[in-house]
This record gives sequence, C-alpha cells and structure tokens, in this order.
Amino acid sequence: MMGRVICAGLGPGDPDLMSLRAARAIGQATHVAYFRKAGRAGQARAIVEGMLRGDAVELPMEYPVTTEIPFASPDYTNALARFYDDWAARLTQLVETTDVLVLCEGDPFFYGSFMHLHSRLQGRVPVEVIPGITGMTGCWTATGQPITWGDDVLTVLMGTLPEEDLVRHMGTADALVVMKTGRNLPKIRRALASAGRLDQAWLVERGTMPGQRVAMLAEAPEDCPYFAIVLVHGQGRRPEIAE
Amino acid sequence: MMGRVICAGLGPGDPDLMSLRAARAIGQATHVAYFRKAGRAGQARAIVEGMLRGDAVELPMEYPVTTEIPFASPDYTNALARFYDDWAARLTQLVETTDVLVLCEGDPFFYGSFMHLHSRLQGRVPVEVIPGITGMTGCWTATGQPITWGDDVLTVLMGTLPEEDLVRHMGTADALVVMKTGRNLPKIRRALASAGRLDQAWLVERGTMPGQRVAMLAEAPEDCPYFAIVLVHGQGRRPEIAE
Repeated sequence: MMGRVICAGLGPGDPDLMSLRAARAIGQATHVAYFRKAGRAGQARAIVEGMLRGDAVELPMEYPVTTEIPFASPDYTNALARFYDDWAARLTQLVETTDVLVLCEGDPFFYGSFMHLHSRLQGRVPVEVIPGITGMTGCWTATGQPITWGDDVLTVLMGTLPEEDLVRHMGTADALVVMKTGRNLPKIRRALASAGRLDQAWLVERGTMPGQRVAMLAEAPEDCPYFAIVLVHGQGRRPEIAE
Repeated sequence: MMGRVICAGLGPGDPDLMSLRAARAIGQATHVAYFRKAGRAGQARAIVEGMLRGDAVELPMEYPVTTEIPFASPDYTNALARFYDDWAARLTQLVETTDVLVLCEGDPFFYGSFMHLHSRLQGRVPVEVIPGITGMTGCWTATGQPITWGDDVLTVLMGTLPEEDLVRHMGTADALVVMKTGRNLPKIRRALASAGRLDQAWLVERGTMPGQRVAMLAEAPEDCPYFAIVLVHGQGRRPEIAE
C-alpha cells in the first residue's frame, strides 16, 4: 500500500473559502475523483476549476440514478449501493500505487456523499479528511447576521423529513437550518407556519456563489434551486432569562 | 469613511484550516484586533502567530471580567456591555482612516464574541465577515466519523443550559453537539445518561490543535478544558424507514 484516499472539503462554493490545506492538496493531486450527475460538469469540479495540475487524472463518479426513480424505492437504494461499492473498489486499487483526492462540497462529514465511500474504505485503506466550511455557514454569512449567540439552541433539519417531524423540531429550537429544500419547499413553508416561525425565515440560494440570492422566505418565489437553504436566526437566548 | 471592519473566522485552531481569503486578509492587515483574557496571549492571536506583517498595529481587546464574578449577575452584564461599547467606538474611529481586521476563532456568526461588536457596528461602518470552519467541525473530523448523514437531525446545545432543557433536546435529535462544556461537564453527563445517549458520546479536547485528545465521554476524566466539545454521531436516518 503506497497511497491514501484524501477527501478535501471544498467549502460552501466560493473557491476563496476553501482551507489552505485543501487548496494545497488540490494543487498537488495527480488523481482527482468527484461525484456528479451524468452529463453535468458537477458542482465540486466547478469549484476547483483552474486549480488542478495539467496532468491530473480525473475520475468523475457519475451517479447511476438521481431523481428518475422514486427516492424511497429498493431499486434506488440498490443501484446506489452498487455504485458506491464499485467506486470504493476502484479507489482501493488505485491507492496501491498513488494518493487519490476526492472532492467534496462543504464539509465531508456533514451530510456529505463521501461518507458512503468512507464507510466502505474505512479500515481497508488510509483515509484522510480535510474539513471544510459547511454550506449552511456560507448561507448564514450571506444574511449578514449571526445565526446563533448566547445559549441559543440550533437544529439542522432535512426538508425530506415528514412534515410533523419538521413542525416538532421547529417549535423547540431557537435557530433553524433546513437543507434539502428544492421540491420540499412547500412542505417546509407549511411546517414553519405551523410552528409560528415562517415570518422569521430566510431563503438563501447559491450562498457564496455567483448568482447568490438572499430573501425572506415569505417573499421568495415558490420554486427554489437545489442549492438553497432555509434559515431562522436565533435571538441570543440569555442564561439569566432561561434559568 | 475610508475603511472597513473585516472579521476573519480563523477556523477550529489549526492555522492550515483557515480559508484562503482569511489568510490573505491576515497577511495584509495593518490593524489587527482580537479578544483575550487579561494577562493571556489569547487563542485567536496564537492561531495567527507568524502570519502578521511586521508593522501591524495590534489591538488586544481584554475582557474586563470573565469568571471572577457570577455570570448571571447584572454587574457582569453591565461590565461587558461597556467593554463592547468602548471597543465599538474605538473601531468606528479607526475605520475613518484604515481597515481594521478583527480575529475570531471558528466562524464569526456561530456563537462568536464578534457578534457583540457586530450588533454595535452594523449600519454605522462597513463590516465584512469572512466565514470559518467551526470548532465543532474540527472536532467531528477528529473522531474520524461523519457527524450526520441521510436525514439525521443535528442539534447544537450549550452546556450552560438548564439540565431539563438538555435532556429534552438530547432525546429528540439524532446527532448532538454540546459546546461550553468545562465546569458544566458533570451536568452534561447526567443529561446524556437521562436521555439514554451517554454510551454514544465522545469528548474532543483541543480539536485540530496541539494536544488534541479524542475519547469516549464515559471513559474520559471528570475535568475538561475550555476547548472541549461533546459529540454524539447520527446513525444515518433513512427516509424509507422514517416515513
């Protein structure tokens, strides 16, 4: 075994917001793997445009399916499992002779696709993870306000959760982040309204990236792109009031 | 008005994990302000050691009180309010002629001290915030495992919260982060035990910094330093099971 799998967190989208360590790893890599939808350039690859060595070998890992078949079906789960198995095997073979860099948007250990490779590689090959600024951090920075201070409770929710779960968590936290919005946005709006939080909610699209848009959710258009996050800022819960 | 206040998030502690933009701002700054306890070097200043210009003017903002008087007393609150008022006035005066860089550990808008200046400066002077990798991200990277995947719910709690609040939130989230540990650690342990999560909890001290220690909380010593975070990893809640 000569090499390692290095997963570099790329941060929220602006290449200037990746870490010094990630930028160095990207500039030195001879083999660079990244997920993308078939036929697309891929967001991770787009972030590192102009940073790779001219002779870097690129390994686009193209998802076999994305939204074409139902998310909860066994076919979807099985196709993805085989896809991750195949790539874990290919990366394991490659690291016999070289390091392989895997690109990951945001932070690799925070709702990242890399963990499906990580769980298959762990204990078999050396793996190094370089953390990154999460997408949500880029989005709350774009609002120009602190997401949390004092003793605020922050809860991060996926828009794919059942509506009653969303409502319950939205009612108990001070600050909220809702990811995986897209087609779930109408459900997220209803849940925020049920929890009495809709008027405080922001929608940040393409945070830190070209085309960034920041709006109050109540005034935002119905549709929203994949790279959109809903935020509710905490108000700075004070310990002298809470106790 | 000639200048701006620029607040740079320094990330979790390892200087190599700050963003390219933050590193550039630090290397160019002519005036550098940072919080510290009186008589201490200060963690933020320590992170940028060796990165500042030789002629940079340093502005250590020394807390008037920290643990000497009770945290919830009016005296504590008033002394801190005057301290932030004074520094906001000094920075406002400085930006008439120059940019001033404020250093902030982690991410400035995530439980950062900077927000007390930010709320006083906002609308009075131009303010730019450079996001950073949060301390919790550095800590979960140190555990070598994803903190969240699938549809996991993540909740971030301050150890200063009342025990019953901690128990309630610990019982409803999949993944947990508990900050402000220190003297609150015995209460945090009791709350995790009440919520049935103590056996899954990790304690990460000085994540990404020299002297980093990673242990299961149940096996960790009773005392813990200020730079310690408690983590419980999510198990990857699957939508096909949750619905």
